[in-house]
Amino acid sequence: MFLKQVLPLLEQRFPQPVDFACQTLRCTGVGESAVEEKIAVPLAALVEAGLELGYCARFGEVDVRLVARGPHAAELVAHAEEKVRMLLGKHIFGSDRDQMEGALIKLLSERKETVVTAESCTGGYIAHRLTNVPGASAVFLGGWVTYSNQAKQTCLGVQTDTLAKNGAVSEATAREMAEGARARSGATYALAVTGIAGPSGGTPDKPVGTVYLALAAPEATLVLHQVNQYDRESFKFVTSQQALDLLRRRLVESTKKLAG
Amino acid sequence: MFLKQVLPLLEQRFPQPVDFACQTLRCTGVGESAVEEKIAVPLAALVEAGLELGYCARFGEVDVRLVARGPHAAELVAHAEEKVRMLLGKHIFGSDRDQMEGALIKLLSERKETVVTAESCTGGYIAHRLTNVPGASAVFLGGWVTYSNQAKQTCLGVQTDTLAKNGAVSEATAREMAEGARARSGATYALAVTGIAGPSGGTPDKPVGTVYLALAAPEATLVLHQVNQYDRESFKFVTSQQALDLLRRRLVESTKKLAG
Repeated sequence: MFLKQVLPLLEQRFPQPVDFACQTLRCTGVGESAVEEKIAVPLAALVEAGLELGYCARFGEVDVRLVARGPHAAELVAHAEEKVRMLLGKHIFGSDRDQMEGALIKLLSERKETVVTAESCTGGYIAHRLTNVPGASAVFLGGWVTYSNQAKQTCLGVQTDTLAKNGAVSEATAREMAEGARARSGATYALAVTGIAGPSGGTPDKPVGTVYLALAAPEATLVLHQVNQYDRESFKFVTSQQALDLLRRRLVESTKKLAG
Repeated sequence: MFLKQVLPLLEQRFPQPVDFACQTLRCTGVGESAVEEKIAVPLAALVEAGLELGYCARFGEVDVRLVARGPHAAELVAHAEEKVRMLLGKHIFGSDRDQMEGALIKLLSERKETVVTAESCTGGYIAHRLTNVPGASAVFLGGWVTYSNQAKQTCLGVQTDTLAKNGAVSEATAREMAEGARARSGATYALAVTGIAGPSGGTPDKPVGTVYLALAAPEATLVLHQVNQYDRESFKFVTSQQALDLLRRRLVESTKKLAG
């Protein structure tokens, strides 16, 4: 009945457009208003020509959605995508349904490189996200969840002095966690995170949400300081997103250097 | 306007019952049909007397919902709850909005005991669930995500022989992972998990979904074998639920022994 009677009625009532094109570009490390500020004016002429430009912001992610209809839909969207990619560059980690963790596993697999994680405040969430990707075992060797100071020392080799002088939530501790994890595992890269997820544990100097993210790579160790003031679970998501993105950008940049 | 005009109309249209009582009991380690089989007949007389009995099944969890209205609502629900608790016993991990991880952290805190995790196929998800609970740091010392065989050996002390003879997904490996994690951390308990999350990696002997869960406790190490055939993310949830429940039951039983 559906095929013989309902479908023809639906087709008559809602004729399909001759042409339709759609592309979603997924960004991170940049807010929705900053995305709009960067692309709205340069894309104004294309919007005049019929491009529909939409934004969707979630924790730690902004989607840019490009839609066009009519005979030139595909060209219009392709042209817009090229502009957006030029303007947002490294902020774009994928398209359509790509996830940050999938993008990262793909990059590592292509480069035949490996990663380990050393997590305090994210409590295993970065490892969980990486291992949600089928095939992760080829590039993800494993990780530590070093919640206690003792675990940071015995598992990762963080120095007693470093903890005493700087505290567990500090640039120095993040750096030693990442370098210890990389040295002990033999992985190409190590990602480390230490911070205060809350709701308690904050101080005037280091409020709830304070986090240090470290990436130990063959050439150097990079440490980022962020303040992610959200509820506990959103804190873990946003922080894990920043950590994964730290490595993704490093890989994208060095792939570009090799290609150039 | 809402308070002055809409609310009185709503109250007139939907008069509140004089009495209303409701209790949800949350179960795990038992399927919906088994729950129904255990409690439907013993509760038939209460249902005759006006008790509404509902079930809600999710991955790894079944809720039993008890509702009553009218002057004897509270007694009816209290009486039903007593029966259900007697019939389902250790399968009940909490009520209302309780989560397994919260119930476990609460039990450990009360007993001033600690736990560590050693995860292969769940990839950090057990640690993530435990650290979602505010205050987890008092009882959760940390964990290992030992995805590669090398990590199982260097981080947890799993023997080369054990891996060679039994494979990474085996009772012997799960046992050594748990015992290694417990010995190296000094925690009261260690939970270990090794299995095949899929979609690939299965064999005729060990199909996708095969998992070994181990609990190393002061008196002994217990190993469970399960086959959890779901998609990758549901596999991780169900397996983490079984692991957390393994420790929860151990704690409930020994608390009972102490009380008895």
